[in-house]
Amino acid sequence: MSLVTLRTITELRARVGEARGAGAVIGAVPTMGALHAGHGSLIERARAECGCVVVTVFVNPTQFNEPADYTKYPRTLEADLAFCEPRGVDIVFAPSEAEMYSAGAQTFVNVGEVAEFMEGQFRPGHFRGVATVVAKLLHVVAPDRAYFGEKDAQQLAVIRRMVADLNFPVEIVEVATVREPDGLALSSRNARLSPDQRRQAVALYQVLLAARSRILDGERVAGELKHLAAEVIARYPAVRLEYFEVADPIRMAPVENITGPVRLAGAIRLGDVRLIDNLLASG
Amino acid sequence: MSLVTLRTITELRARVGEARGAGAVIGAVPTMGALHAGHGSLIERARAECGCVVVTVFVNPTQFNEPADYTKYPRTLEADLAFCEPRGVDIVFAPSEAEMYSAGAQTFVNVGEVAEFMEGQFRPGHFRGVATVVAKLLHVVAPDRAYFGEKDAQQLAVIRRMVADLNFPVEIVEVATVREPDGLALSSRNARLSPDQRRQAVALYQVLLAARSRILDGERVAGELKHLAAEVIARYPAVRLEYFEVADPIRMAPVENITGPVRLAGAIRLGDVRLIDNLLASG
Repeated sequence: MSLVTLRTITELRARVGEARGAGAVIGAVPTMGALHAGHGSLIERARAECGCVVVTVFVNPTQFNEPADYTKYPRTLEADLAFCEPRGVDIVFAPSEAEMYSAGAQTFVNVGEVAEFMEGQFRPGHFRGVATVVAKLLHVVAPDRAYFGEKDAQQLAVIRRMVADLNFPVEIVEVATVREPDGLALSSRNARLSPDQRRQAVALYQVLLAARSRILDGERVAGELKHLAAEVIARYPAVRLEYFEVADPIRMAPVENITGPVRLAGAIRLGDVRLIDNLLASG
Repeated sequence: MSLVTLRTITELRARVGEARGAGAVIGAVPTMGALHAGHGSLIERARAECGCVVVTVFVNPTQFNEPADYTKYPRTLEADLAFCEPRGVDIVFAPSEAEMYSAGAQTFVNVGEVAEFMEGQFRPGHFRGVATVVAKLLHVVAPDRAYFGEKDAQQLAVIRRMVADLNFPVEIVEVATVREPDGLALSSRNARLSPDQRRQAVALYQVLLAARSRILDGERVAGELKHLAAEVIARYPAVRLEYFEVADPIRMAPVENITGPVRLAGAIRLGDVRLIDNLLASG
């Protein structure tokens, strides 16, 4: 089956229904487009595990807390289709905003504590928008498995929590972060960096590596790691650290003392571009 | 196939999956048990339209705003099973609270304006609990059709809104209210009325009938109908009117002037029993 691009929920359901009727396991890869090798890794995993792979491409307005970030988010559907085709994707679902949100829509999925800190704190409403659009996409595609990247670790925790709490009949699959040779996590927003910003963007990964290394050396106090993060960031004049946090890897709530596995996570700003990254570390 | 009672989500999914695999349309009738002829009407409709009928019996704690109402809500599972069996129900799903809500559950579905007025105003958090448990049951049963009673008209509007906004792949079917000979709408809570309260409980239906009649006579001002409601209720000393409202039948927001179809809806209290009822009227 060659790649088919669908714009409407009705068409998508019909096509996925055919595949399901033929016995295929359905795999969904929800994206906002501007596909890169990180998405490629999700697609590759879905392709290996599912008979029918659906990539959704939808820049979801309700998860953007900053209008400019929404406006400037790269939209590259032609390139995205060219990216999907050789990777064996069966269906690209690229709905319009009107197809996804009807007038008068007023329902939101709210996840609790797991959405409160870090990204939840600095991007008010973000995870409400994420949980809601993922709930919608899971209902529209009705996949057996859905693939998400570890790069958005808190998003993954939010989605896992929502799926468990609301009994969605889907398996959530986590796929490891893909990085540039210097360690920068792939992100569609990287395309907006100037050459100098691009060189300095590795700062966040350097913070995470330094913190993980310090934990391996025996540090157990999160506050000490925050001092370290500030020191590392100071070497990158184009970079502002929005937060660096040491969090419980399931609850995504900050911890003060490291007594087990933790998620090291942070956000930086370079000009008007905001980037996030994270690493798992074990105390 | 004779009636089977299931307690766990895993067993239910397996059984429903078999029926779906055999080509059956799946019909769900979500209830809180204490089944009466109103539920019987839902079951009858589901039985006529579906190859596999699943009645869920779960007194959902998250939709009770008053602890006493939750504690005193009738629980009559044996009688409910005896009610379902001769009506051709295939599966009764009667999960425990622990089966439905795991420790740490923190996700809620919030519907907006449609859940704000009337029951939403007098029962804070009620519709959040309803929307959340219905979302869960729809994910657990995965029915093609789900049946709800017109008696809980605002609940129906909330569920319709949620299903549309979140793209649930289910058809919501509305079934007309079933009434006692004197007009009292059937409700599991009627069992808690004393003989005198039972006689006076018809007050709310009398309010609704009087208001509808006044609209047929040409009244277009909601405020006038509210005066009328107070007058009618005054004839029933055991009854306190909590609210009487004239609402848009889709948005469920109060209207001041009647220019088309409206939902007349109210709630009364008799001692510690609270009853609701409604009628559609056309201006």
